[in-house]
Amino acid sequence: MKYTIFGESHGPAIGVVLEGVPAGLELDLNALRADMARRAPGKSALSTARKETDEVNIISGFFEGKTTGAPLAMVIQNSDQHSGDYDALRYTPRPSHGDFAGFMASKGCQDHRGGGHFSGRLTAPLVAAGAVAKQLLAQRGVEVYAHISGIYGILDESWEDPAQVKAAAAKPFPVLDDAKGKEMREAILEAKQGQDSVGGSIECVVAGLPAGLGAPDFGRNVEGVFSQYLFAVPAVKAVAFGAGVGFSYMRGTEANDPIVNQDGQVVTKTNNAGGCNGGITNGMPVVFEVTMRPTPSIGLPQESVDLRTGEEVEIEITGRHDPCIVPRAVPVIEAAAALAACELLML
Amino acid sequence: MKYTIFGESHGPAIGVVLEGVPAGLELDLNALRADMARRAPGKSALSTARKETDEVNIISGFFEGKTTGAPLAMVIQNSDQHSGDYDALRYTPRPSHGDFAGFMASKGCQDHRGGGHFSGRLTAPLVAAGAVAKQLLAQRGVEVYAHISGIYGILDESWEDPAQVKAAAAKPFPVLDDAKGKEMREAILEAKQGQDSVGGSIECVVAGLPAGLGAPDFGRNVEGVFSQYLFAVPAVKAVAFGAGVGFSYMRGTEANDPIVNQDGQVVTKTNNAGGCNGGITNGMPVVFEVTMRPTPSIGLPQESVDLRTGEEVEIEITGRHDPCIVPRAVPVIEAAAALAACELLML
Amino acid sequence: MKYTIFGESHGPAIGVVLEGVPAGLELDLNALRADMARRAPGKSALSTARKETDEVNIISGFFEGKTTGAPLAMVIQNSDQHSGDYDALRYTPRPSHGDFAGFMASKGCQDHRGGGHFSGRLTAPLVAAGAVAKQLLAQRGVEVYAHISGIYGILDESWEDPAQVKAAAAKPFPVLDDAKGKEMREAILEAKQGQDSVGGSIECVVAGLPAGLGAPDFGRNVEGVFSQYLFAVPAVKAVAFGAGVGFSYMRGTEANDPIVNQDGQVVTKTNNAGGCNGGITNGMPVVFEVTMRPTPSIGLPQESVDLRTGEEVEIEITGRHDPCIVPRAVPVIEAAAALAACELLML
Amino acid sequence: MKYTIFGESHGPAIGVVLEGVPAGLELDLNALRADMARRAPGKSALSTARKETDEVNIISGFFEGKTTGAPLAMVIQNSDQHSGDYDALRYTPRPSHGDFAGFMASKGCQDHRGGGHFSGRLTAPLVAAGAVAKQLLAQRGVEVYAHISGIYGILDESWEDPAQVKAAAAKPFPVLDDAKGKEMREAILEAKQGQDSVGGSIECVVAGLPAGLGAPDFGRNVEGVFSQYLFAVPAVKAVAFGAGVGFSYMRGTEANDPIVNQDGQVVTKTNNAGGCNGGITNGMPVVFEVTMRPTPSIGLPQESVDLRTGEEVEIEITGRHDPCIVPRAVPVIEAAAALAACELLML
Repeated sequence: MKYTIFGESHGPAIGVVLEGVPAGLELDLNALRADMARRAPGKSALSTARKETDEVNIISGFFEGKTTGAPLAMVIQNSDQHSGDYDALRYTPRPSHGDFAGFMASKGCQDHRGGGHFSGRLTAPLVAAGAVAKQLLAQRGVEVYAHISGIYGILDESWEDPAQVKAAAAKPFPVLDDAKGKEMREAILEAKQGQDSVGGSIECVVAGLPAGLGAPDFGRNVEGVFSQYLFAVPAVKAVAFGAGVGFSYMRGTEANDPIVNQDGQVVTKTNNAGGCNGGITNGMPVVFEVTMRPTPSIGLPQESVDLRTGEEVEIEITGRHDPCIVPRAVPVIEAAAALAACELLML
Repeated sequence: MKYTIFGESHGPAIGVVLEGVPAGLELDLNALRADMARRAPGKSALSTARKETDEVNIISGFFEGKTTGAPLAMVIQNSDQHSGDYDALRYTPRPSHGDFAGFMASKGCQDHRGGGHFSGRLTAPLVAAGAVAKQLLAQRGVEVYAHISGIYGILDESWEDPAQVKAAAAKPFPVLDDAKGKEMREAILEAKQGQDSVGGSIECVVAGLPAGLGAPDFGRNVEGVFSQYLFAVPAVKAVAFGAGVGFSYMRGTEANDPIVNQDGQVVTKTNNAGGCNGGITNGMPVVFEVTMRPTPSIGLPQESVDLRTGEEVEIEITGRHDPCIVPRAVPVIEAAAALAACELLML
Repeated sequence: MKYTIFGESHGPAIGVVLEGVPAGLELDLNALRADMARRAPGKSALSTARKETDEVNIISGFFEGKTTGAPLAMVIQNSDQHSGDYDALRYTPRPSHGDFAGFMASKGCQDHRGGGHFSGRLTAPLVAAGAVAKQLLAQRGVEVYAHISGIYGILDESWEDPAQVKAAAAKPFPVLDDAKGKEMREAILEAKQGQDSVGGSIECVVAGLPAGLGAPDFGRNVEGVFSQYLFAVPAVKAVAFGAGVGFSYMRGTEANDPIVNQDGQVVTKTNNAGGCNGGITNGMPVVFEVTMRPTPSIGLPQESVDLRTGEEVEIEITGRHDPCIVPRAVPVIEAAAALAACELLML
Repeated sequence: MKYTIFGESHGPAIGVVLEGVPAGLELDLNALRADMARRAPGKSALSTARKETDEVNIISGFFEGKTTGAPLAMVIQNSDQHSGDYDALRYTPRPSHGDFAGFMASKGCQDHRGGGHFSGRLTAPLVAAGAVAKQLLAQRGVEVYAHISGIYGILDESWEDPAQVKAAAAKPFPVLDDAKGKEMREAILEAKQGQDSVGGSIECVVAGLPAGLGAPDFGRNVEGVFSQYLFAVPAVKAVAFGAGVGFSYMRGTEANDPIVNQDGQVVTKTNNAGGCNGGITNGMPVVFEVTMRPTPSIGLPQESVDLRTGEEVEIEITGRHDPCIVPRAVPVIEAAAALAACELLML
């Protein structure tokens, strides 16, 4: 299964083509729409006031309620665009956006409006593709769910049982500990009021993958396959499996996961490894955390350079933006993880 | 350029085939050997007492001192093997090694001796391939160097100028601050004396990549390309770019890198982004940190299960092992990064 | 550059996503439309009476007249569909169509209407993608043109100079010898009157590729790269380079191309090799011929099996079909060749 | 499964790395050696007098008689090299060899001795890889066999039953009709006596593939997958499926394969399609023919150009060569087909 996302924030439409979908899958379109709704903006003060039309039209590879095995093409029309908001900043790249790097890559030819092909809006088709992947995984007993693990240093509580994460993932503000969730929301609103933004992290669990998937080799190892999908999500800057960066502070006696026989099944007592050893799944849930940078669009004045003249300028970003991308990114991370898990199962 | 590593720790030989190497590169074999020596074990009390014959034989793609453009095959003979050390543990997987996952993936058929194809020894051909990549990069003005950024919580100092990292990388114990390095070595020796091991982290700088490489898309973004190579290194469990996991604790005003004109060149004042925005290089050095888990091989007794009977057993790992893999992994991370940088330049 | 075609003959739309298009290409949309018109049906008694709306909408990767480097998505709406024509044959596969094979691959779930994703209509987006590729090639001095080399045993004349093929390619019925072309058209009409169809062949020239592209290796050799694209065109059953199947009847003295110095350039006197030796271009035009099977849709009764009951049945295909696909396939073969040539130039 | 061949004719060794081999395959090394022997030179007056040491050493991915799932590396040492034979022609490329194209691709850096990486000797590791693929296919009931279908215009007889081809494939001179075989051998010897060479063709049958493998799409269609492997064999210049180039002379009524019920199984009465429709297997044997050019190495004087001076020169190829490569290529084509069939089964 390979996905290709196309479109720009202010073009006529965005979409995705998913190749290699097995034939005969009865797609639950309501489940797909539910994931789209989890990502959609405009639902609360926490996110951008933009309203996006996220109605997914499947125009290929789907017939009489089932996938046909032909490439699955899904298209979402664009609307509610304030393209004019962006013209002022066309040649003065917004700090920490893809503007300058994209300018260099495209020789100045990119669609600059609303971030163009770099826009977070492009995660909408990714969620649609991920919803298909999730339904394929469900047939194999695999589930994917994520929660906000931290925002601006406020951390969600840790968990014992993957079912807790599953329950959290279903909440409007997906955390295990709602009190912590309240603090996080306050931190976001505070940043918003200051015309600023905040970063955070998302933890994701992929439960039900059998032991023995993957390989230690380049291009086939579990961590590499997942990270390939996760880093394709805008704003993700770190990916850590199991104990993650904590391994750097551990001894082997703390880090090693004892192997035991649990009701006839070989499992590990702890899951510091995050479900894989030697690049291969070990039958425990695959667990990882991604770190997402603060939204680069902030209202405060920032330093930039006019690419036409080289002159240093101060810019102000108007338009409408998320003060924190993390809450809306939860289903996006799940989608990326679901596509990665499909690749591992098919390798 | 694509690399394929083959071999097992206790088989006749290990090696790598590197496809897509441009023709006409005059290989500096001394530079290659120097990188091999940086990785080689047995040099101090910090590493395993194993002596490895790491003489690289180039058997294809190299003629009269230059690459030919045909696949470059490099082979390293194995020797100094104590294969008997491993028979006792054949069916009782060592915790947090690839043993159990590999057993499941291979239906019990893997070469179990010395970790087989999962062995850290397989990083030797990776270093050889990376040495070729580094020489290709040097022709384009790109340099790659890494240092130990932390061991068991003892952190190296931070740096202002990439040249400091370059200088550190050349040291026998590659840290910027030698006093911190001494503490780290003591922590390793202490762990060794306790028959234990410790984890740590390596920070790597890729300097000289032009702005505009990569794309936001799946399979082509800077972070995804690097992570694919980095997670193929055994023991790497986290990859973080720029401010990395720190983004989770930051505001946009702290995280954003102001854009300025420095002597006619558009650069950023800070480099929290780690050299890439929107999946594309921005001309600043690409900087990332990898976290490496503590060596899973420790001398203390551990819990395991006999895979033949399901019986829970206590195992003791004898043999010779590194109490901390981080120091020897520095050139390995550089090699992986160099191969990733080549891919980006060729995309 | 990688292309992905999506859509079905009787779905809402068909299209293509082209990844890896360099930024900054000023697309000549009239040239694109001209190639679409060459492929379009309904222009003469030789082709199907279907009218297809082949207006190409570029919905991504194109901004202010230039490519942006982001995936180029092109969509063509479907119309003029007689879907009812196909219901009668849903479970009685048409001989030599993809119906039965597709039924097995899709577990009976494919869109059966008008051939679905197997339809020759899916070559429309391929022509659009090829038109982009041709414009990229033109910047490098590479041209691609094809002519009908034979229909039902009536062969076009041979040529001395690629310019002759270029001139032929521009004709409404693209042959060098119009008298032979008249005979071919008569053979097609005769087949049509007999409710039958005829096969033929197309010869294609790719002129201007520099020497030294490709490699002898799997996945990188000139013939393999071209054939990969050519066999993705429906109805192509053979691909032959240079003297092609004629090599089987030749001696080395006849087949070898003498190497000479022509005005300071090393060329070959003859071009039996079809522009490549050892899987690498030699600077001569790449020349190949593809064989296309007779249209499997014929009006005469044919034997089939009802897949629901296993019962042998006689079927009659109604609907509208091309009695010979070859004339309309000329720009399709050019498109496939242009995409292949781009891959070789970028490798 | 992906194979990478390395080595040069006159280097220390040649070999292949095969990735993605499933674990647990008990390799029959005698069957592997038997295929190597079918390809080996020096057995009769028909082939080169070179003796090659074709002993295959498996140095990775094979343990205690079974594949481990790790990359399978197989190495063959070189010997019996007359490297001096080639120095005289280093800068005067042999017509229709890869010499000139390779010179351009490698900027003059290729190993010129004995064709270097372009040598037909590189088909030895391909046969070894194919032998592994055949054993995997046998587990799925798939068999691959080929015969010489023509040499210099002398054609082998046609067949009714794949078993006839299987029987022919096992012969020292693999043809169905031994009288025709005698004529072919005489044609080869006659060419040899005239210091010339002859071309020919090989027909291959892949029996037992289930219906439903492949897809109409680029990179996944049956013909494209097979051709990718087949054109990677040196000297192959045409690949044709089923009726092949004959389709160009046929009507739909002749070309179409009637669909019938044979003992409860849906099959086609004829197999003009060569086992695939719409890019997907239809359950009939996949049948194709490859055309192989006459060996470019001939003893007669030929025209070339000195690449250092541009001077036109007459060259004479000494050394030892096959007057016809076709007989030794039969197991090579089987190997390529077997690897392609594995890819289709795993897609």
